[in-house]
Amino acid sequence: MIRHPAFACDPWQVCEKTLSLDVLAQTESIFALSNGHIGLRGNLDEGEPHALPGTYLNSVYELRPLPYAEAGYGYPESGQTVVNVTNGKLIRLLVDDEPFDVRYGTLHEHERVLDMRAGTLTRRVRWCSPAGGHVRITSTRLVSFTHRAVAAIKYEVEPVDRPLRVVVQSELVANETVPRIDADPRAGALIPTPLVLEENIPAAEGAAVMVHRTRVSGLRVAAAMRHEVDGPQGTRIEADGEGDVSRVTVATRLLAGQRLRLIKYIGYGWSAVRSRPALHDQVVAALAAAKLTGWDGLCAEQREFLDEFWAGADVELEDDEEVQQAVRFGLFHLLQAGARVEQRLIPGKGLTGSGYDGHAFWDTEGFVLPVLTYTYPRAAADALAWRLSILPKARARAAQLGLEGAAFPWRTINGEECSGYWPAGTAAFHVNADIADAVIRYVDATEDVGFERDVGLPLLVATARLWCSLGFFGPDGRFRIDGVTGPDEYSAIRDNNVFTNLMARRNLLAAAAAAERYPADAERLGVAPEEIAGWRKAAGAMYIPYDERLGVHPQHEGFTQHEVWDFASTRPEQYPLMLHFPYFELYRKQVVKQADLVLAMHLCSDCFTPEQKARNFAYYEALTVRDSSLSACTQAVLAAEVGFLELAYAYLGEAALMDLRDLQNNTRDGVHMASLAGAWLALVAGFGGMRADNGVIRFAPRLPALLRRLAFRLRYRGRLLAVEVTPERTVYRLLDGPPLTMVHYDEEITLSDEATRPTPEVRPPDIEIRQPPGREPLPRVPFRGCAALPGRSPAAGGRPGPAAGPGDRKGPEAGGRAGDPETA
Amino acid sequence: MIRHPAFACDPWQVCEKTLSLDVLAQTESIFALSNGHIGLRGNLDEGEPHALPGTYLNSVYELRPLPYAEAGYGYPESGQTVVNVTNGKLIRLLVDDEPFDVRYGTLHEHERVLDMRAGTLTRRVRWCSPAGGHVRITSTRLVSFTHRAVAAIKYEVEPVDRPLRVVVQSELVANETVPRIDADPRAGALIPTPLVLEENIPAAEGAAVMVHRTRVSGLRVAAAMRHEVDGPQGTRIEADGEGDVSRVTVATRLLAGQRLRLIKYIGYGWSAVRSRPALHDQVVAALAAAKLTGWDGLCAEQREFLDEFWAGADVELEDDEEVQQAVRFGLFHLLQAGARVEQRLIPGKGLTGSGYDGHAFWDTEGFVLPVLTYTYPRAAADALAWRLSILPKARARAAQLGLEGAAFPWRTINGEECSGYWPAGTAAFHVNADIADAVIRYVDATEDVGFERDVGLPLLVATARLWCSLGFFGPDGRFRIDGVTGPDEYSAIRDNNVFTNLMARRNLLAAAAAAERYPADAERLGVAPEEIAGWRKAAGAMYIPYDERLGVHPQHEGFTQHEVWDFASTRPEQYPLMLHFPYFELYRKQVVKQADLVLAMHLCSDCFTPEQKARNFAYYEALTVRDSSLSACTQAVLAAEVGFLELAYAYLGEAALMDLRDLQNNTRDGVHMASLAGAWLALVAGFGGMRADNGVIRFAPRLPALLRRLAFRLRYRGRLLAVEVTPERTVYRLLDGPPLTMVHYDEEITLSDEATRPTPEVRPPDIEIRQPPGREPLPRVPFRGCAALPGRSPAAGGRPGPAAGPGDRKGPEAGGRAGDPETA
Repeated sequence: MIRHPAFACDPWQVCEKTLSLDVLAQTESIFALSNGHIGLRGNLDEGEPHALPGTYLNSVYELRPLPYAEAGYGYPESGQTVVNVTNGKLIRLLVDDEPFDVRYGTLHEHERVLDMRAGTLTRRVRWCSPAGGHVRITSTRLVSFTHRAVAAIKYEVEPVDRPLRVVVQSELVANETVPRIDADPRAGALIPTPLVLEENIPAAEGAAVMVHRTRVSGLRVAAAMRHEVDGPQGTRIEADGEGDVSRVTVATRLLAGQRLRLIKYIGYGWSAVRSRPALHDQVVAALAAAKLTGWDGLCAEQREFLDEFWAGADVELEDDEEVQQAVRFGLFHLLQAGARVEQRLIPGKGLTGSGYDGHAFWDTEGFVLPVLTYTYPRAAADALAWRLSILPKARARAAQLGLEGAAFPWRTINGEECSGYWPAGTAAFHVNADIADAVIRYVDATEDVGFERDVGLPLLVATARLWCSLGFFGPDGRFRIDGVTGPDEYSAIRDNNVFTNLMARRNLLAAAAAAERYPADAERLGVAPEEIAGWRKAAGAMYIPYDERLGVHPQHEGFTQHEVWDFASTRPEQYPLMLHFPYFELYRKQVVKQADLVLAMHLCSDCFTPEQKARNFAYYEALTVRDSSLSACTQAVLAAEVGFLELAYAYLGEAALMDLRDLQNNTRDGVHMASLAGAWLALVAGFGGMRADNGVIRFAPRLPALLRRLAFRLRYRGRLLAVEVTPERTVYRLLDGPPLTMVHYDEEITLSDEATRPTPEVRPPDIEIRQPPGREPLPRVPFRGCAALPGRSPAAGGRPGPAAGPGDRKGPEAGGRAGDPETA
Repeated sequence: MIRHPAFACDPWQVCEKTLSLDVLAQTESIFALSNGHIGLRGNLDEGEPHALPGTYLNSVYELRPLPYAEAGYGYPESGQTVVNVTNGKLIRLLVDDEPFDVRYGTLHEHERVLDMRAGTLTRRVRWCSPAGGHVRITSTRLVSFTHRAVAAIKYEVEPVDRPLRVVVQSELVANETVPRIDADPRAGALIPTPLVLEENIPAAEGAAVMVHRTRVSGLRVAAAMRHEVDGPQGTRIEADGEGDVSRVTVATRLLAGQRLRLIKYIGYGWSAVRSRPALHDQVVAALAAAKLTGWDGLCAEQREFLDEFWAGADVELEDDEEVQQAVRFGLFHLLQAGARVEQRLIPGKGLTGSGYDGHAFWDTEGFVLPVLTYTYPRAAADALAWRLSILPKARARAAQLGLEGAAFPWRTINGEECSGYWPAGTAAFHVNADIADAVIRYVDATEDVGFERDVGLPLLVATARLWCSLGFFGPDGRFRIDGVTGPDEYSAIRDNNVFTNLMARRNLLAAAAAAERYPADAERLGVAPEEIAGWRKAAGAMYIPYDERLGVHPQHEGFTQHEVWDFASTRPEQYPLMLHFPYFELYRKQVVKQADLVLAMHLCSDCFTPEQKARNFAYYEALTVRDSSLSACTQAVLAAEVGFLELAYAYLGEAALMDLRDLQNNTRDGVHMASLAGAWLALVAGFGGMRADNGVIRFAPRLPALLRRLAFRLRYRGRLLAVEVTPERTVYRLLDGPPLTMVHYDEEITLSDEATRPTPEVRPPDIEIRQPPGREPLPRVPFRGCAALPGRSPAAGGRPGPAAGPGDRKGPEAGGRAGDPETA
């Protein structure tokens, strides 16, 4: 949990004003830069201190055996783990023989700024060595959105008051020692020295290339660096390297007011098939292109790229500057994860850490793509094209399991199942319907015919086939899907999970429609009319259990008959429950880790009446403990729809601040892409009431009493829409594209320029809402102060609160020693 | 599978006439000797060739870490594995410089005889070395029933035709290399060199002691040997030893007709707390007592012990000599497993192999104790006293799981849970009701008041408390037990398993009754009248689901709504299903590994009407694939009760021959105690129709058309009863004890001497019975030939058949080379 007054809440920047080593790990994740291909954790330039050094390339992983106390048929034999590849961001500094290390000397000033319009991380430091060498250091780092293979750093150092001897060592280092933070199962596995050296020849002119290969998975990784140095006369540059280190050393003597500036271009490439020389040349070429563009050019392209993104994606929120910052922070990280993903995966943590082993889960299709589809649709298409690329492996997995079609893995990097606990992995077949749902949404939002035919159709057909083999027609003629696990991981291996069955129905109907739209392509996939009819029959007969006694949908058949979890006897420190109770107990009782039936009400909105939604929401609200980061945003969306706007606002705060406040205590392992996406969903689908399907985009705007204005932009079917909601009225603007027929509440509007409608008052239904005791979200009050965020009271029960009193604040640490090293 | 003409079917002996190395592993299990404290696999005296060398001491185990691909709360961190302790049965022989090894030279004669009245394994061999040294070797081995710590071997060697130099080396060897047979998960884990040497000092006079300690579990093991040598003048004896070997060497020169005889006494002891000197002295003392008794004395005591056992336990079966032999073989192994168990466990394989890591499961209470209770009740009391001894660990486990009372482990040696797959381990809480059931049965059969108060009551109370915390009263007032796994391992984590709920009810009512019978003791256990009332209330409201549509009990709530397994598409080689299909598929479909609801109909007989029994039996018969050795016997019992006598006979054959025919292909790892018990159950509870409860023993005798006589003896409440069933009449004899009121069908008989009643004709109900295609038991025909058993036709689908044609037989191998070594 991040307690210290951390991030000044500039609406476009995340700014750290003091360095606190006890949250170093979290800030490494928060300040991570990525373009979806390269990911650099926000490690300090000089490498140390660090919590988790991290440099990642999308899809570079190592294999490791998965052990089982008792093996079983179909258990995956090996797992994949993201590899910390060659670190190119390392720049060490020697000040008069004293290494710059914030644990020594005095850190007079410290600032790190993640600028979400510039796409850069800037660090400004004023440090005095134990021997009195006083320097000012400024570094700016970027991972280019426009040069996929390139990162760059501008590093500047100047003496403050007297001449100093300064040596800067810019390095490439492979096989860094990665500390094990703790045994949290959500962290990644540790693979020591994953890289085998193939080439390390320092070239002339301060440029160098290193090539490695992963030991078991056999992936070749090349990293290169090239420098521009600007220093006073007599500045010397040398290059050397051996083993896993390549080093460019710049030595100079600086007078007060003089400055040494180093621009470092870093290029990365990897391949499973290309040769060492080919990969070598590839990274050298990438650096040549980067050098041609130059540092200023890279920065300008970066800003231009982001300007265009924000023009179509920005969300403005008046009155709550903290959430304003957080929702932009979320969108920025989503863009970083997806921008250059190019037919590779978007992992649950993006490329910001090794959490969850760097795997992609259903979170991507369930939460991340629903945002990218409307804000940066190309990334959604790319991520789904990755699913198509692993379709052969998903088919093989289905065959291994005795099923038809494709069974996409629960967690993976290379497409093969890595889940070592099948009740919460393999059995959670809904991931397949979630992929189909993402296809359906993307096609609806973009009318991308080529994608629909080439990517969407094969995915829809393969997943529809899976459902037909997973389900069957029971004696009463209903189509049942038994023994599966839904989104809620506190239930498993149950019959007729409503979320799964509804999403499977949607999947089956979409496959049928797509196959009929592209008959020739469908035929090539072996789809006959009888098969299409079979899909429709199964969809039509899909069993959706309903509890007449309670008037609610059971999460799965029989759920509402189970014992309700004894919340009254559960102590606050026993959350998250899965770390303190056996699955056995969790699975057999009414307790919900994360929205499941409630998520079904969001994604399959028209399958529930408003009255059902209200009753279901109230029922599950009392059972949901939010031990997952995938819950608050969905609860926000449904709370808003049902009419509990203050509650929705509270959940919005929780979703939005998941990482900036480290609410799950594992931001150190990387940021939570799905929860970051959830902030947008809570605002746009929640308060904006946005739903889109079959070419119709609908809004049902509503604001909690404490917010005065919400504005957002999104892209739909070639249009750029801007929506501005105030308590009195909602204004729809068509900023780009042909006129659009859209819906405001029940009114159809043909929008050609601008339309203004009253924002109706929304009243909560007459139904009591309560959460499990101690698991209520703290009511949110708009937060306007910006200079320093409040700390969090331990009594807050792990939830974000409004501004706390001054007694809760810690004084700034800059000016004192940051940290307390035991040795000097 | 044992295909060769293996065991001549003498009714009191298991006799092997030829040595076939490809079934060496199986015969090591079948010829294992044990008294429940010491277990010696039937390894050849000379140690090699072997499949799995094995010497076991009850409860001597080593710990090993249990690995998980994804860890979870409450997962056991370490497993226990039975340790192959110091081998004392090793006797090597050198004939004119040539080691006796059946893989070399010529094995002219070979015979091994397990004599079930003598309690010995005798081996007779005539062997000619490659150099022409021709010897006759006879060895007789016993593990004493009367000297718990002692085994003994009489080893004799004589030249056949010319003088020979003979050296016999009698050894103690620790840390034998144990080969890994294959990766079958049912086999045990391999722990290399588990023993750390503490003492190895060869003493004078051919006696020696070795003391070791297990590496992690820290158990101290002592083994000792002492010899009597009878040879011609000039016979020399030496002793030496180093490291893990202690050796007594006897060298002599024998003329044709002369004989060297060695009697070896072996003593074992182990302790977790006693010191090395104490343990040393303990085994030396055990050998002193053995020597005092002498070889002939040990043999005489052995026979006397067995005579008394058989007098109260024998089963005679006319017409089917194969099953006659098998049922005695089963009883003999049960006695071996239980005779001197003395508050330690009876593992699933007894002490005959390392299968299942040497763990005890619910099999013991579910199958083994129901036999021992009526045939050797002291062993049943001892085994339940072991459960009492691990009650503190079971309480701790319950507390860890958030439950009340005691949660006995699914599999264990030392009382701690070793199951690394909780859906089929921890979730199978019925083990607790099975223990209670064994208590209830033992108390009913013995009226052992001291046991009931001191052992039974605490066990009943602790398990009743478990059920009260596992279950709850649903909104309709029914007491539900959700999310558990019943006996059938092809379903898991389901609600209201009928077997579990019925057995829990029985458990709760018995606890209430016992607490009221011993109020002071119950009070000491903290039992208040309100708690007793709570048990009765839960029992009274216990939910027993019933499918009105089909008129059958679902195995668990919802089971009959699931898809029926596609048996038609399942190929013969895909059995056992768990090795070819994921648990996911098995759990969600109607397919049954082993009797579950059908077992409930046996153990809770009066909870079902005859019509329900018939319909249920037919329903589950069509779903049960018998991939477990715990199924055929129960199916036999119910088939007999319902009236399908030929089918019962077929299942009897399968249960009885499980190991003698190696029907599960894993007899190599040890014999299946539960299935061996099942042969008795099929005969006595099946064809005898025996049920006993609340002081009433009932019989409903019936015979399949092909059997002309079944006679059995059993002990009940201090009486020794003999029952003789022929197609015409049944004769009950009271051989010992006061008059007994018993029931023949519905007639109450007061038996003081002998009573004869007609055996009524039993007709099958008008209901169709079918098994899954290819999983039918082969119809059984009484087998009378004795000289050699038939081989098995591969087309028989893994099931035992009647006598096959002569084309199916293999010629005897004795006289040729046994085996085909690659080197000489």
